[in-house]
Amino acid sequence: MERIPILRMGKYLLVTIQVDMHDRLAMQLQEDLTARIAETQARGVLIDISALDIVDSFIGRMLSDIAGMSRILDAHTVVVGMQPAVAITLVELGLSLQGVRTALDVERGMALLASSMDSLGEEEGDEDDGDADQE
Amino acid sequence: MERIPILRMGKYLLVTIQVDMHDRLAMQLQEDLTARIAETQARGVLIDISALDIVDSFIGRMLSDIAGMSRILDAHTVVVGMQPAVAITLVELGLSLQGVRTALDVERGMALLASSMDSLGEEEGDEDDGDADQE
Repeated sequence: MERIPILRMGKYLLVTIQVDMHDRLAMQLQEDLTARIAETQARGVLIDISALDIVDSFIGRMLSDIAGMSRILDAHTVVVGMQPAVAITLVELGLSLQGVRTALDVERGMALLASSMDSLGEEEGDEDDGDADQE
Repeated sequence: MERIPILRMGKYLLVTIQVDMHDRLAMQLQEDLTARIAETQARGVLIDISALDIVDSFIGRMLSDIAGMSRILDAHTVVVGMQPAVAITLVELGLSLQGVRTALDVERGMALLASSMDSLGEEEGDEDDGDADQE
């Protein structure tokens, strides 16, 4: 059976979506991903959608769902690599990708994850001096 | 047209193969990958094949070819995530994956790449001995 691979990279998990998603595959991905988050204690999930020419409401909902599930398991989700045309279509369709953060590519996504860990003081910054103001 | 995404992660490029490879797609991947190596000056290529249940002689040759092309462009290639059954089949078929190094997963692949850079003294070894004839 078809499965979308989940790659572990340090504290993060990386998922590259390349194939047409259908119901069963999406559910399988959600199951696999939540299991992997629990197993690896991952703090962040990167979902690369650079191969997708179209993000419809089904994919949009799947991404929101994954972000929601990850959040409950205490992992942040960042969707990376969205094609410009996809961004246009999403806005035109009125799809907001509720609760999903995005970044231009994997590197920036990782930086975003790292900075949100930092701002939560999770890294190793045990001595916190009140409020570290971020821009 | 279908395309396999190539993700940049620091000095390395990551390719996840999830779909059935055919001639045109393999050629497209080789073109895209060599272009990206040149563009990003990547020093290593990680090819994740954890989604593949079967590696036949076609895929095997493609992997060898990619490793050969990358080597000429001065990038090391590591194939990661091979399923145990695939390793068995490869040996039974007598396919040797000529010139291809392998690692269990992405993290170990990255460590392998990092250690081969190190052993070449490429990291911050700026003392050049005269024979660098490119900029």
